[in-house]
Amino acid sequence: MKQVKIKLKNHSYNILIEQGLLEQAGKYISQVSSSNTAVVISDKTVSGLYSQNLLQTLSRSGITAELLTVPDGENSKSLSTLKEIYTTLINHEVKRDSLIIALGGGVIGDLAGFVAATYLRGVPYIQVPTTLLAQVDSSVGGKTAINHPLGKNLIGSFYQPLIVLIDPLVLKTLKRREINSGLGEVIKYSLITDNNLLSILEKNLNIFFTFSNVSILSQVISDCCCIKASIVRKDEKEKNLRRILNFGHTLGHALEAVTDYSLFKHGEAVLYGIKWAAFVSNQKGFISESDFKRIESLVQTISLPSLPDKINENNLFEKTLIDKKQTQQGLNLVFLKAMGKAIIQKDDNLKNYIRDWLEYEKK
Amino acid sequence: MKQVKIKLKNHSYNILIEQGLLEQAGKYISQVSSSNTAVVISDKTVSGLYSQNLLQTLSRSGITAELLTVPDGENSKSLSTLKEIYTTLINHEVKRDSLIIALGGGVIGDLAGFVAATYLRGVPYIQVPTTLLAQVDSSVGGKTAINHPLGKNLIGSFYQPLIVLIDPLVLKTLKRREINSGLGEVIKYSLITDNNLLSILEKNLNIFFTFSNVSILSQVISDCCCIKASIVRKDEKEKNLRRILNFGHTLGHALEAVTDYSLFKHGEAVLYGIKWAAFVSNQKGFISESDFKRIESLVQTISLPSLPDKINENNLFEKTLIDKKQTQQGLNLVFLKAMGKAIIQKDDNLKNYIRDWLEYEKK
Repeated sequence: MKQVKIKLKNHSYNILIEQGLLEQAGKYISQVSSSNTAVVISDKTVSGLYSQNLLQTLSRSGITAELLTVPDGENSKSLSTLKEIYTTLINHEVKRDSLIIALGGGVIGDLAGFVAATYLRGVPYIQVPTTLLAQVDSSVGGKTAINHPLGKNLIGSFYQPLIVLIDPLVLKTLKRREINSGLGEVIKYSLITDNNLLSILEKNLNIFFTFSNVSILSQVISDCCCIKASIVRKDEKEKNLRRILNFGHTLGHALEAVTDYSLFKHGEAVLYGIKWAAFVSNQKGFISESDFKRIESLVQTISLPSLPDKINENNLFEKTLIDKKQTQQGLNLVFLKAMGKAIIQKDDNLKNYIRDWLEYEKK
Repeated sequence: MKQVKIKLKNHSYNILIEQGLLEQAGKYISQVSSSNTAVVISDKTVSGLYSQNLLQTLSRSGITAELLTVPDGENSKSLSTLKEIYTTLINHEVKRDSLIIALGGGVIGDLAGFVAATYLRGVPYIQVPTTLLAQVDSSVGGKTAINHPLGKNLIGSFYQPLIVLIDPLVLKTLKRREINSGLGEVIKYSLITDNNLLSILEKNLNIFFTFSNVSILSQVISDCCCIKASIVRKDEKEKNLRRILNFGHTLGHALEAVTDYSLFKHGEAVLYGIKWAAFVSNQKGFISESDFKRIESLVQTISLPSLPDKINENNLFEKTLIDKKQTQQGLNLVFLKAMGKAIIQKDDNLKNYIRDWLEYEKK
């Protein structure tokens, strides 16, 4: 069993990573909580695959759980779904000492986390992430969110779980594009802090599709959680350092927005964003041409939707400005100062960098 | 200037109390924040009385503020108002480093606080409470909340302000019943920890109506904030000790619920709840008959709406059970173990205590 300890000022918790962990979740949840009731929040697909296993292990550990299922997809991260969940919790007389357990990907984690953060001013919360993206990214750091019709993740809070239980075997039922999307974040980690991870990925990226070596797979997930944890520990509320985790995300978010969040999965857009940030880092003279090519060739082992023709520097640039991390002091951009070292910079040439890269990318 | 320091694990802030403070708010806000933009959230009545003063002092301190006004009353603590506020903030491109300033009573503090806690995962927040209830109660402790159609304050979070600015002179424009409502909490503090405050109130309760001695008035507000602060410091997230602040509230909430939140103001219902809790504390042999009479006679200097005939032990008891502080382990009740000493107890005789007191009270 791999264990990543998340140490925060006020609250510490563990991420446990082990194949088959889903079937033993009840045991580990009982170790961190004395609650004997829980509400499992999941989506239709994940619920169909894994909720029975989870409910059974909870029951074996003396926890009576009920299942609350929302429709698949980003639309469930809405104020209206949120209100429905509150209503269900109140009608079922769910109390302050009941657990909220998120069983699903990033949408479910964000939504259930926000429910846990705000129902009765906060109830204990547990994450069982079932996508690669959720396992390596959203399960660390306590970000919760819902969308507003005018923008994604504009409403949310920081709220930490009691424990995160990661079973890499649940990734087997993911579609290839879901894995690709998670690899966007995995590759990001390998670039912003840890070149050892980069080498491992260059040799082993296929294990995410073949599951031929679950041990290395678990190790990579654990490494990603460690990297994120060490950054989050130093900057829990995203005041500064934590922004390096947005590497690849400024352009990624803009790409998602320009294509109405329908063409790209989040991590797919981030992979383009990584290519862009690597391109600019090379243009700025921070990393060499060969390092840029090294990054590009790793990303290019992953098949991505093509950039549609309607994308240009104007519409992409415009969408970068609505990024919620923007403050009045201007947009923070993340580049590679060197391989394994991210840097946060403001830069007035953003639009030019987008134009130059689009020309290069579309060649 | 009186100053109450709120020391919490992760975050400390000051409550400043001084007549005329509203006109100098900008100066003190600038001392705790480098933001140069703010959104003032207020209701129609308070906004009409005080928003211009506040906007002017902010402007003098280089803070550009816009005013966001919601209708008066509890109905504004709704999910729909919340959504409208989010929409306005997004449309006005309010960023993470903008301040949210609550100018108003408990409704505005709760609502604006929840907005600040959840917009962009948290923006800096300042409270300028304008009712006695808000000054002595909701301005300390970081509770924020909105209502759900099925119950009050069921959605919320703990979120601390940067500073709280209390100007006792703004209480002059309150209606008498608003003052009465605030006195419910003031008298509560005087009973659960501090008998010195009780003596002051017995001699000076009239100053809350005459403003004949603003110095004592400020001292009482400061004392109340100190008492609440010392309790909150020991139990920030309301796990245990903080529950003594619910003295008078179990029956108070039930009275409000049975009368559809229309007959009683919150503190008026709490004053009945205090009479009930004092009655039971005497029945249990914790406090003497003369102490009970002492409490009762202080409360009776405040004119309250009569208990309507439809109230009986059955409907009151039923409503105590939906109190959100209830856990699966049963309802926690707060009594006086002695004058100035509160105790938290579970008690199976709740319904009988309600019946006995109603008989006594209606005589």
